[in-house]
Amino acid sequence: MQRYFLPPEGFEQDRIVITGDDAHHLIRVMRAEPGDEVICCDGLGRAVLARLTEIGKTEVSAIATQELPQTGEPSVELWIAQSLPKGDKLETVMQKGTELGATRFIPFLSERTVVQYDAKKEEKRLDRWRKIVKEAAEQSHRSVVPEVLAPLSWKALLKLIGEVELAVLCYEKESGLQLRSLLREIGDLREKSATEAATPSAQTEGTATSTSRPTKRPRILVIVGPEGGITEREAEEAEQAGARSTGLGPRILRTETAGMAATACIMYEYGEMGG
Amino acid sequence: MQRYFLPPEGFEQDRIVITGDDAHHLIRVMRAEPGDEVICCDGLGRAVLARLTEIGKTEVSAIATQELPQTGEPSVELWIAQSLPKGDKLETVMQKGTELGATRFIPFLSERTVVQYDAKKEEKRLDRWRKIVKEAAEQSHRSVVPEVLAPLSWKALLKLIGEVELAVLCYEKESGLQLRSLLREIGDLREKSATEAATPSAQTEGTATSTSRPTKRPRILVIVGPEGGITEREAEEAEQAGARSTGLGPRILRTETAGMAATACIMYEYGEMGG
Repeated sequence: MQRYFLPPEGFEQDRIVITGDDAHHLIRVMRAEPGDEVICCDGLGRAVLARLTEIGKTEVSAIATQELPQTGEPSVELWIAQSLPKGDKLETVMQKGTELGATRFIPFLSERTVVQYDAKKEEKRLDRWRKIVKEAAEQSHRSVVPEVLAPLSWKALLKLIGEVELAVLCYEKESGLQLRSLLREIGDLREKSATEAATPSAQTEGTATSTSRPTKRPRILVIVGPEGGITEREAEEAEQAGARSTGLGPRILRTETAGMAATACIMYEYGEMGG
Repeated sequence: MQRYFLPPEGFEQDRIVITGDDAHHLIRVMRAEPGDEVICCDGLGRAVLARLTEIGKTEVSAIATQELPQTGEPSVELWIAQSLPKGDKLETVMQKGTELGATRFIPFLSERTVVQYDAKKEEKRLDRWRKIVKEAAEQSHRSVVPEVLAPLSWKALLKLIGEVELAVLCYEKESGLQLRSLLREIGDLREKSATEAATPSAQTEGTATSTSRPTKRPRILVIVGPEGGITEREAEEAEQAGARSTGLGPRILRTETAGMAATACIMYEYGEMGG
C-alpha cells in the first residue's frame, strides 16, 4: 500500500490533510478516489491506515482508521558521516543508506574534500537530499524519516563522536583492526545500553529522530572520507576523539561504496538484514 | 600504484605489451616515462610489477620485474544474478559488486522484467558492462576481473542453480527464512568444499574465472528479481531447482540495492569485509 510521510501539522488527531507533492502524487499519479486507503506517517514514528474522504484540486483529506505498529526502524541508530564526494554520489549514499536503515546523514568537509562548498547553494541541495531521503523512507517502509544535517566542518564532526557509543572510522589500511573484529570485540551495544543510563543528546538543529528515539537504542557512527581518503592527521584526531580506525577488507572500496557496505555489515551483525 | 588488466596475449613471459585504452591512459593521462613502474595483471590471477621500457604513440612496452602475490580475491565465489533493471542500475550493481568481491555477473530476464531486451544492442551493452567491471577491478585491487555473462533466460538461470553450493533467492517476505539464519544454518561452505570432491564446472562462454579458480572455493549465487519482484511461480521454480528463498530484513530494498547488500553481508559472514 502507498505510504506518505506528512509534516506533523498534517495530522490533527485522526483528521489528516495531505498537501503539496504528496497531494499531487495522490491526485495526478495514483488518481485516488474517496474511499481509497493509504498509509500516512508523521515521520516521527506514528503510522496510520487512512481512508481518503475528499479529493480536492491541490489537497486531499483523509481520516485515520487504524494505528499501525512501527515497522522498519532498526534496533541501533546508525549515523553515516560522509565527506562531500564528487557528483551525485552523496545522493546514492543517502538513498541506499535509508533503505539499509541509517537514521542520520552527516555530510562533512575534510582536508582532501575536492568539491567546492558553496554556502549559497546549500539550502537547495539540503532540500534535495531531504527529498531523496523522504522518498527512500516511503519506498522502503520506514516509520521515521532519517535526518539530514547541513555539512559540518571536520571539527564539528569530531564533537559528534562524543555523542555515540561507537564511532567507526573507515580507514584504508593493509593491516590492523578490521570491521568484524571490532564489532565482535565491542559486543552487543544494545545490551550495554539497556543497563546504562541514557546519555543526554546535545541539541542539534532538527534532531527529530534523536528526541523521539527510544533512549536505549545505541548509536553507531560510520565516518567515510572523500575520494582521496582522510589524512593521517585527521585519523589521529578522530582516534583521539574516540573513533576506531577500521578496515573493510582487502578490496579498496570507493568512497560512496564504503558507507553503504559498512552500514549493511553493521545491520547484518545486529540481525537487521534478516535473521 | 596504477594497476592495469591486460589481455593474456599482452604477456609473453616477462615481456609485456600494453595497447588500446590502457596505453592511451599511460601515455596521455599518466604521461608515463621509461623507468616508471606499474602493476600489470592478466585478469586470470597473475599480477606483476612491471618497469616501462618504451613509450610509443599507441603502445607501451614493459618488462616484468617481480611476480606479485594474488590479492583481493575472496575465499568464496559469489555470483550475482540480477533481472535486467531499468536505466543504468545494472552498471551500479556491477561496479559495486566488483568492489565487494563478486566473481561473476549474470543478467537475466524474468516475467516482470520491464526493460525491453534488444539483442542487437546486446553486444555493445555487454562491452560496456565488461569495461565497467574491468575498471572497478583495477580500482579495487582485484587480481581477477569478474566475468559478465550475456543476459540469460529464466530457464537458463534455473540450470545454473545446480552449479553452486548455495543459491540465495532474495525474496521480499514478511516472515520466513532470513539471510543471517540461512548462512548460519548452512555453516561454513569452505569447510565442506575442502572435504568434498570439486564438482566439474559446466562449459560456459568465457568462463575464465571458473577455469582458473582454486577448485575448493565454494560458490554462492545471489538471485535478485526486477523492480516488480519475481512471481510466486518463479519463486517455486527456483526453490525446486535448489535455491533458498531468503528475506533481507524488514526494510524493502530496491532491486539494485538488494544484490549489493546481500553481497556485503555474505562477504562479511565469510570474514571478507575485514576481520
